[in-house]
Amino acid sequence: MATLNELAELIGGKVVGDGSVTINRMAPIDAAGPGDITFVANPKYLAKLKETTASAVIVKPGIECPGVALLVCDNPYLAFAKVLTALHVRRPEAQGVMDGAWVDPSAELGADVTIHPGCVIGKKARIGRGTILYPGVVVYDAVEIGEDCLVHAGVSIREQCRIGNRVVIQPGAVIGSDGFGFAPDGKAYYKIPQVGIVSIEDDVEVGANVCIDRAAMGVTLVKRGTKIDNLVQIAHNVSVGEDTILVAQVGIAGSSKVGNHCTLGGQVGVSGHIKIGDNTMVAAQSGIISDLPPGQVFSGTPTMPHREWLKASAGVKNLPAMRKTINSLQKRIEELEKLVKER
Amino acid sequence: MATLNELAELIGGKVVGDGSVTINRMAPIDAAGPGDITFVANPKYLAKLKETTASAVIVKPGIECPGVALLVCDNPYLAFAKVLTALHVRRPEAQGVMDGAWVDPSAELGADVTIHPGCVIGKKARIGRGTILYPGVVVYDAVEIGEDCLVHAGVSIREQCRIGNRVVIQPGAVIGSDGFGFAPDGKAYYKIPQVGIVSIEDDVEVGANVCIDRAAMGVTLVKRGTKIDNLVQIAHNVSVGEDTILVAQVGIAGSSKVGNHCTLGGQVGVSGHIKIGDNTMVAAQSGIISDLPPGQVFSGTPTMPHREWLKASAGVKNLPAMRKTINSLQKRIEELEKLVKER
Amino acid sequence: MATLNELAELIGGKVVGDGSVTINRMAPIDAAGPGDITFVANPKYLAKLKETTASAVIVKPGIECPGVALLVCDNPYLAFAKVLTALHVRRPEAQGVMDGAWVDPSAELGADVTIHPGCVIGKKARIGRGTILYPGVVVYDAVEIGEDCLVHAGVSIREQCRIGNRVVIQPGAVIGSDGFGFAPDGKAYYKIPQVGIVSIEDDVEVGANVCIDRAAMGVTLVKRGTKIDNLVQIAHNVSVGEDTILVAQVGIAGSSKVGNHCTLGGQVGVSGHIKIGDNTMVAAQSGIISDLPPGQVFSGTPTMPHREWLKASAGVKNLPAMRKTINSLQKRIEELEKLVKER
Repeated sequence: MATLNELAELIGGKVVGDGSVTINRMAPIDAAGPGDITFVANPKYLAKLKETTASAVIVKPGIECPGVALLVCDNPYLAFAKVLTALHVRRPEAQGVMDGAWVDPSAELGADVTIHPGCVIGKKARIGRGTILYPGVVVYDAVEIGEDCLVHAGVSIREQCRIGNRVVIQPGAVIGSDGFGFAPDGKAYYKIPQVGIVSIEDDVEVGANVCIDRAAMGVTLVKRGTKIDNLVQIAHNVSVGEDTILVAQVGIAGSSKVGNHCTLGGQVGVSGHIKIGDNTMVAAQSGIISDLPPGQVFSGTPTMPHREWLKASAGVKNLPAMRKTINSLQKRIEELEKLVKER
Repeated sequence: MATLNELAELIGGKVVGDGSVTINRMAPIDAAGPGDITFVANPKYLAKLKETTASAVIVKPGIECPGVALLVCDNPYLAFAKVLTALHVRRPEAQGVMDGAWVDPSAELGADVTIHPGCVIGKKARIGRGTILYPGVVVYDAVEIGEDCLVHAGVSIREQCRIGNRVVIQPGAVIGSDGFGFAPDGKAYYKIPQVGIVSIEDDVEVGANVCIDRAAMGVTLVKRGTKIDNLVQIAHNVSVGEDTILVAQVGIAGSSKVGNHCTLGGQVGVSGHIKIGDNTMVAAQSGIISDLPPGQVFSGTPTMPHREWLKASAGVKNLPAMRKTINSLQKRIEELEKLVKER
Repeated sequence: MATLNELAELIGGKVVGDGSVTINRMAPIDAAGPGDITFVANPKYLAKLKETTASAVIVKPGIECPGVALLVCDNPYLAFAKVLTALHVRRPEAQGVMDGAWVDPSAELGADVTIHPGCVIGKKARIGRGTILYPGVVVYDAVEIGEDCLVHAGVSIREQCRIGNRVVIQPGAVIGSDGFGFAPDGKAYYKIPQVGIVSIEDDVEVGANVCIDRAAMGVTLVKRGTKIDNLVQIAHNVSVGEDTILVAQVGIAGSSKVGNHCTLGGQVGVSGHIKIGDNTMVAAQSGIISDLPPGQVFSGTPTMPHREWLKASAGVKNLPAMRKTINSLQKRIEELEKLVKER
C-alpha cells in the first residue's frame, strides 16, 4: 500500500491528477479497479485507458486521460516492475535455522538468515546475511553464498562453489555438478576428476532445474546480472558475460565464452570452445558451431546472419517449386537444342 | 489376482473360452505363461498367438484361437491398460504424517493422506483426501492440492499454486517457479516480480524435472487430462488445453496458448504469444513461430504443413544434385547462345 | 602428494629427469609452478613447455625439455586423468547413517556406507558396501544399489530399480519415473501403469537432472560404462549400449536401442523404436527418425551421412543465390526462344 505520490518518488515519475490516492495493488488493465494501479506500455492498449476504473495508470509522457490519475515516466515497463515490487514483494522475516535443518557446526551463518527444514549445510560453508534457503536446499562443504540471496527448494550447490550477493536460484537447480570429462582408455572411458568450481556473480538469476557444471580445473563463470531461464545446461569451464539472457533449454558446451549483454533464444545449442561477442542475439533453436562476432543477430543451424536465414528458410519451403522450374527449363533447353541442331 | 470373467466385466468385454481361470499378472506375449494374461493390439503379433501358453489373451473381435481363452473387446490397448491397472496397481495404505515430515500447524490435511519423511508443508497449505506426498516434497505456503494425487520425491510446488484431483507429478518437477521476466534498466535488467500462480486441473500428469512457471500476473494454466512428459518447460502465462500431449523436452514460451487434444512432439519449441488450434499435431524438433490452425499436422522450423515439409526436406538432401543440374543447364545455354549468335 | 616415480608407476610411464621430486597437485600449464605437475596433450602448447616452472610435465614420447622432469607415456590425456585422480580425489571416510537420515528398518546397508541427513531409504532397499548417498537422496522401496557408488544430492530412485557398482549419479537425476504411456479412451487418455524397472549397469555416470523412465513392462537398460550428460531424457524400454556417450539434453523416445560405443551430440533427438548401430556418431541437434547403420557419422534432421549434410547445409545457405541463377537462366532461355523462333 502506498500513495501515488510515494510511487512517483520511487520511480522518479510525475503525477498528473490526484497524487494522494491510495494504491493497494497492481493489476492488468482489464482487471484493474478502484485502489489499483495499472500500466500501458504498448500503444495498442491506449484505447482501454478511457474505460478503466483503476485509480492510476503508468504511462509515457504525452498521454492524456481526464478522470484517471496518471503516473508519467519515460520507461513505463521498468516503472511497472518497480511499483509491482514495492506493492507486492515483501521479504519474509528472518527465521534463523529452523527445526529440521542440518547445519554443520563449522559452517558460518550471517545475521538474519533463514534456513528452512530439510536443508543440509556442509562443513565450513558460509552463508551471507539475509540469505534465505527454502526447504531441501543442499549446500556441500566449503560453499560460499553471499548476502540477500534466495535459494529455492531442492537446489544443490556442490563443494567449494561461490555464489555472489542477491542471487536468486529457482527450485531444483544444480550448481557445481561434475563436468562431463572422460579420457578414452581403449574402448572404455576413464573419468577425469572435475576439481574446479562454479562462480556465480552478483544479481544473477538461475532458473528451475538449470545445471551448471564445475570446471575440470579452474572456474565455470556466470558474470554479474546475467539471467538464466529454466532447464539451461552450462558445461564445464564455460564463461557467460554480464547482463546476458539465456532463454529456457539453451545448452552451452565446454569452454565456450558468451559475451556481455547477449541473448540466446530458447533451445539454442552452442558447441564447445566457441566465442560469442558482446551484444549478440541468437534466435531460438539455432546451433552455433563457430565463433560469432559482436552486435549482430543470428539464426539457423549452422548459424548465419538472421536476414540470410530468413531468405534461406523461405528458399527451403520453396524447394519443390524450384525443382519444377528447373525441370521445365530443362525441357525448354532440350526443345531449343533440337530446333537449333535441326537447322 | 482376478478371474477372467471379473476382468471381462471390468473392461466390458466378452470371454471366449474358460472365464473361471485365475489370472495373476499381465505379461508381454513373448514372456507370458500359465496364470498370465497378455494382449495383441498389433496384427503382426497375431502369429505368436498360436504358440502362447498364457492363460488368456486380450484381442479384437474376429480373432479365433482354440486352446487359449480370449478376452474380446473393441479396444485391446485400452483394455490392456485397465487390466494392468487392476492386476498390478495397488495404492499404498495411508500413513498420515510420517516421522521426519515437517507440516506447519496452519496447514490443512485431508483424511487418508500420506506425508513421507523429508516433506515440508508450508503455512495454510491444503492437501486433499487420499493424496500421497513421497519423500522430500516441498509445498510452499498457501498451496492447494486436491484429492488422490501422487506427488513424487523432490517435487517443489511454490506459494499459492493450485493442483486439482488425481494429478500425478513425477520426481523433481517444479511447479510455480518465477516466470522469466526482466525489464531493461540501461544495460542491466530489473526483475519483474512474478505474482501470479500456476493452476493444474484434474487428471493431469506432470513428468520428471518438468518446469511450469507461475504467471507474471494471473494464471499459468494446464487444463484437465493433459499429459506432460519429462523435462518440458512451460513459461509464465501459458495455457495448455485439455487432453493435450506434450512430449519430452518441449519448450513453450510466455503467454502462448495450446489448444485441446493437441500433440507436440519431443523437443518442439513454441515462441511467445502463439496460438495453436485444437487437434493440432506438431512433429518432434519443430519450431513454431506463428499461429497454427486447428486439426492439421505440422513439421519443421519454421513449421509448415507436414506434407510440404516432407518435400522440402527431401529437397534439401537433393540440393547438391540440383546444383549440378543447374550448372549443366547453364553450360547448355551457353552452348546454345554461341550457336544461335554464330548464325 | 606423491613422488614423480610413484606417479610413473601408477600410469605405466617413464621418468626423464629427477623422479624423486615431490608432486603436490595438477595444474594447467599456464598456472603450474614448483610442486605442480602439468600436461601437454595438444602439440600447439609444446612451446609453453620451455617457460614452465612446473616440477614435472606429462608428455608423449619424443619430446625433450631440459630443466624440467618429464613423465613420458603414450596417452598423456589418460595419464593426466589418472594422476589428477591420484593427487586430488580422496573418498570421504564412511560415516554410516547420519542424524537426519530416514532408513526403513527392512533396508539392508552394506559396510562403510554413508547416508547423509535428509536421505530417505524405503522398505527392503539394498545399498552396497562403500556407497555414499549425499543429502536428500530418496531411495524408494526394493531398490538395489551396488558398491562404491556416489549418489549426489536430491537424486530420486524409484521402486525396484537396480543400480550397479561404481555408478556416479549427479544431483537431481531421476531414475525410474513412470514411462509416458497413455491409451486413448475417447478424447481422454487412460494411464498405462508402468510396471517395469530401470537397470543401470556398472561404471555408468548419470548427469544432473537426467530423467530415465522405468519400462512399461520389462527393463529400461543402460549398459556398462556409458556416460550420460546433464538433462538427458531416456524414455521407457530404451536400451543404451556399453561405453556410449550421450551429450547434454539428448532425448531418446520409447523402445529405441542405441548401440555400443556410440556418441550422440548435444540436443540430439531419437524417435521411438529406432535402432542405432555400434560405433555410430551423431552430430549435435540432429533428429534421428530411422535406423542408423554402425560405424558412420550422421548429421541433420532427418539425419544423413555427415558429408552429405555438409553439402546440403551449404546448399541451403546458397539458396538465394541459386534462385537468382535460375531466374537469369530463365531469361536467357526466353531470349533464345525468341531468337530461334524469329528465324
